[in-house]
Amino acid sequence: MSESRFFEAGEILLQSGHSLHDVRLAYGTYGTLNEDKSNAVVILTPFGMRHTDCEYFFGPSKALDPARHFIIVPNLLGNGLSSSPSNTPSPFDRGNFPHVSIYDNVMLQHRFITEVLDIDKLLLVMGHSMGALQTYQWAVLFPDMMAAIAPICGSARTSPHNKVFLQGMRGILELDPAWKDGWYDTPPEVGLKTLGRAWAASPPSQGFYRESKYNDMGYNSIEDFLVGHWENMFVSRDANDILSHISTWYHADLSDNEIYCGDFEKALGTISAKAIVMPSQTDIYFPPEDGAYEAAHIPNAEFRPIPSIWGHWAGNARNPEDAAFIDQALAELLAG
Amino acid sequence: MSESRFFEAGEILLQSGHSLHDVRLAYGTYGTLNEDKSNAVVILTPFGMRHTDCEYFFGPSKALDPARHFIIVPNLLGNGLSSSPSNTPSPFDRGNFPHVSIYDNVMLQHRFITEVLDIDKLLLVMGHSMGALQTYQWAVLFPDMMAAIAPICGSARTSPHNKVFLQGMRGILELDPAWKDGWYDTPPEVGLKTLGRAWAASPPSQGFYRESKYNDMGYNSIEDFLVGHWENMFVSRDANDILSHISTWYHADLSDNEIYCGDFEKALGTISAKAIVMPSQTDIYFPPEDGAYEAAHIPNAEFRPIPSIWGHWAGNARNPEDAAFIDQALAELLAG
Repeated sequence: MSESRFFEAGEILLQSGHSLHDVRLAYGTYGTLNEDKSNAVVILTPFGMRHTDCEYFFGPSKALDPARHFIIVPNLLGNGLSSSPSNTPSPFDRGNFPHVSIYDNVMLQHRFITEVLDIDKLLLVMGHSMGALQTYQWAVLFPDMMAAIAPICGSARTSPHNKVFLQGMRGILELDPAWKDGWYDTPPEVGLKTLGRAWAASPPSQGFYRESKYNDMGYNSIEDFLVGHWENMFVSRDANDILSHISTWYHADLSDNEIYCGDFEKALGTISAKAIVMPSQTDIYFPPEDGAYEAAHIPNAEFRPIPSIWGHWAGNARNPEDAAFIDQALAELLAG
Repeated sequence: MSESRFFEAGEILLQSGHSLHDVRLAYGTYGTLNEDKSNAVVILTPFGMRHTDCEYFFGPSKALDPARHFIIVPNLLGNGLSSSPSNTPSPFDRGNFPHVSIYDNVMLQHRFITEVLDIDKLLLVMGHSMGALQTYQWAVLFPDMMAAIAPICGSARTSPHNKVFLQGMRGILELDPAWKDGWYDTPPEVGLKTLGRAWAASPPSQGFYRESKYNDMGYNSIEDFLVGHWENMFVSRDANDILSHISTWYHADLSDNEIYCGDFEKALGTISAKAIVMPSQTDIYFPPEDGAYEAAHIPNAEFRPIPSIWGHWAGNARNPEDAAFIDQALAELLAG
């Protein structure tokens, strides 16, 4: 477990034209940077998660190992640890917190890694879910900087179906009068719980529920799982932080910047890193068809879907077979 | 277009032990019953739909044709036309309307068809979505009565994943303070719209949105589709009627009755009708795996998934190829 450390970045200009003030980028690091700075790996955080939630990707018996690698995990803006609606000083706090893009995040992460850590080569950039969105953005913005990428259960841009899902979820929080357009003093608890319960139908697949895989997580029934996992997870988060991440996710597109001007296929074509694109076979968010399309447009990519019934959760190692499948791919990428 | 007609059924005892008073079963019929009463077909209605919404299944150039068949379409209780929270007299109106099961519906439909119409043989029983839930229930309760069944984009019991989806949707309406536990005088409009927007991510598949198939329905953008189709559809319905259908759907299981006592496979095994089980290849609600399992347990069933990207909507003929696929199967079933 790595303690949170912070890069104080001052004021940054966002892609939207707004400024974000007193920016802090929270991060964790694991292992030691070697002398020639050639063992660095970046893992990027998913929706609502923190660097400590990504530790399942590495360890003594794994492809990624802090005994050999220097692992950097920067926290997404909006996750409650990096600058977020819940921790930014007035007047840009809460309901006033601006939209932050994946591009904004990656530019800030890049500044931190190159200017503060003074690292200009990365062995691997990777992430699950929104971590995959960032991975692709890294690969097109800084193609010469990394040898390999592993986008896991994610995509290079948010699909139309995924956007429909996200706007539906956003509407639930906004329906709760206790949300007060983001200016609540008391958290909108009922809205958060309702959101968690509605969200539950998407990350785990139909097969996950059919085979009662929530038992593997210690839950005895669906209702037990809905309360113990879903309500609890969403109630423990800040509503505005959730909405900030929904906004970041919703608008994600690796080509939505001045360099590529929305030319999605051109952007994918510039990725020079070796890539293993790993969607889950049963992901409702990011179905394998999207990953196949992306892999086909990346020069040095292999499409390798995870044969799992854990849906989007194939990427978070709750199922040991999925974790082993991903670890094998990471070993190959790190072997060069 | 058939006008609504009504079977006044008086008081019925529901499976739950509650009574439903002043029950009316709304129905439409098409074509003429022949002399030996051998040309009757039953089509069962989906979630929130009415008999007039099922007319796409038949016509002069189709397998089912009112020139040859006598087509009976009974409306599900709770759909606003048959007895429903919105039209039942006090004190069992609105928030007091009891849970009605698929079994309750089928028993009432059976009584109407045998006692009022005096029909004891059916060529075919069929339906889309909740219509498929009723189709299976018909087939196990009255196996000697029909020659064939066509359950389309549905299942014989509601799957755990589908239940998770439904409880999530239910929570959205309940979150709207205007709902008032069902005792609203003014409809909970914001809750209904929010529900429609959240619901939109499930019936059409990922591929439907990827390929902008809403254009085929006359919508120019996703937002246009969300407002024009989804908000509009849910705002036009009564909130308690929606909740009644969610409850009926949620608890559906063809073996949940005194005859089968939950022995799902045994119930499927008693179906003697010739069956073509037609899930959609891309249905998020009713994935083909569930249909394959059910077909494997029905003695005289063929599993024939619809190769469509229209998701659950493969069953409602918005896509001409899907309509033709289903029509072909109905022709085979009617040919005996």
